[in-house]
Amino acid sequence: MTANPFTLLESHACCGGEVRFLSHQSRELGLPARVNLFLPESAVAGAAVPAVYCLAGLTCDQDTFLIKSNAIRYAAAHGLALIAPDTSPRGADVAGEDEAYDLGTAAGYYLDATADPWAAHYRMGSYIRKELPALMEAHFPLKAGCRGIMGHSMGGMGALAIALGDASAWQTVSAFAPISAPARVEWGQKVTKAYFGGYEAEWGQYDPCLLLAAGKTHPGPLLVDQGTDDEFLDRLRPDLLEEAAAKAGQALMLRRHKGYDHSYWFVQSFVKDHLAHHAKGLL
Amino acid sequence: MTANPFTLLESHACCGGEVRFLSHQSRELGLPARVNLFLPESAVAGAAVPAVYCLAGLTCDQDTFLIKSNAIRYAAAHGLALIAPDTSPRGADVAGEDEAYDLGTAAGYYLDATADPWAAHYRMGSYIRKELPALMEAHFPLKAGCRGIMGHSMGGMGALAIALGDASAWQTVSAFAPISAPARVEWGQKVTKAYFGGYEAEWGQYDPCLLLAAGKTHPGPLLVDQGTDDEFLDRLRPDLLEEAAAKAGQALMLRRHKGYDHSYWFVQSFVKDHLAHHAKGLL
Repeated sequence: MTANPFTLLESHACCGGEVRFLSHQSRELGLPARVNLFLPESAVAGAAVPAVYCLAGLTCDQDTFLIKSNAIRYAAAHGLALIAPDTSPRGADVAGEDEAYDLGTAAGYYLDATADPWAAHYRMGSYIRKELPALMEAHFPLKAGCRGIMGHSMGGMGALAIALGDASAWQTVSAFAPISAPARVEWGQKVTKAYFGGYEAEWGQYDPCLLLAAGKTHPGPLLVDQGTDDEFLDRLRPDLLEEAAAKAGQALMLRRHKGYDHSYWFVQSFVKDHLAHHAKGLL
Repeated sequence: MTANPFTLLESHACCGGEVRFLSHQSRELGLPARVNLFLPESAVAGAAVPAVYCLAGLTCDQDTFLIKSNAIRYAAAHGLALIAPDTSPRGADVAGEDEAYDLGTAAGYYLDATADPWAAHYRMGSYIRKELPALMEAHFPLKAGCRGIMGHSMGGMGALAIALGDASAWQTVSAFAPISAPARVEWGQKVTKAYFGGYEAEWGQYDPCLLLAAGKTHPGPLLVDQGTDDEFLDRLRPDLLEEAAAKAGQALMLRRHKGYDHSYWFVQSFVKDHLAHHAKGLL
């Protein structure tokens, strides 16, 4: 085993286990990166456990999902680790990266930018798909290759795309209010122009609906929760996900919740079911 | 009923009920004040339910406890409302009020200042004890006079002091890592000097240990959780609370948790038991 590349910034006992705030130098991002880890009691004692990756949405960081989703107590009860990465590189020093909430900092979209000036550091796709899991499994008591992934909004898109893209590496997947068809909505079009230099075909790897249309399915089922009063429904397009899943023969549990909006007040209301879903597939 | 003095700033479906962000003009504070309310499903449908007041600690505001404690789902399960006020007046315009984390803004200590320039607005004591419950019960589906109170750190002190001070108005009480003997520790001495103009005797109304020593007890029991690795143990002094309760014949369940610190990672680990405690006494 190579030297531990992680610096432990903070550690807190929580629900019988431990929350650890970590930083490390990311090869893919070419920058220091933050990631938070929850280890349940058994893992703190040294047993290897499965991990569920938690991807947050626009404007968020590595703290958001763990603080606001209330996921920890269910992870603790099931004996699952949680891994919450940041939502973009930080300090890439790209002109304009801090000007909009939906591009640049905290808007990495879990993809690899191909156009300058973004391409050098905006590589959250390869970071989450490859670099981070390999590093985490090498240095913490995590079961190698035994992984779930979930996310909210932009992170829900990331979770679906990553699991559909490599189903053997991610055995379980779920999402809260995911951006299901990014290539077809305003958020994604801004991304296309900047991160892909206008080259739309890049979305083939990152758009859940396009992945399904290309036959990339998951043994699943995909668990997706969506509030009916979500203020971003026209940019999330659960209807297109439903359609794409049906056409692809992809098992999808899309649950629509009356009166719920896009916030973490919604996420925390249904997170128990998500952890049960991941536990069922990973344990 | 008088006109509703509350402005609804935001409302979010959550755990079958509703989180409401409110503001109103406080008579006691002489300023606009923020307060967050969680109503369980039955109350949203119109039934009057008991409420548990949630007092946060230094540096926090009306959002902190509801976001970080994970209390809502248990309140929802028991059919209890949660009321989370701010931790101080905001915008009192006292010179220096934003200079330290432990005096002024976000450090109201749930007491009434008696010394200028603080006395005009720093009246969180009367605000939480009298004004806020009366207003909330007049304008929301809450059972009149049926109240619990809990808090963290400075808020734990507030919860204990308020319940010991008027046990008939607050039927249940609990605290996480409360400042148990403020008059005897550094935080309190700073308060004495500023808010009380050096007049220590004011603490008789606000110091849990002094209240117990003066025979102010609660039918209780008091439920108090404390981490053994709390970085502020020498300012919290659970040992003095234990001693004062024993002398006063006050029933106290003081639970020490090995390895837990002062954070909300600790609070969320034991909040389930607190809601069960309040439900038992209020329902």
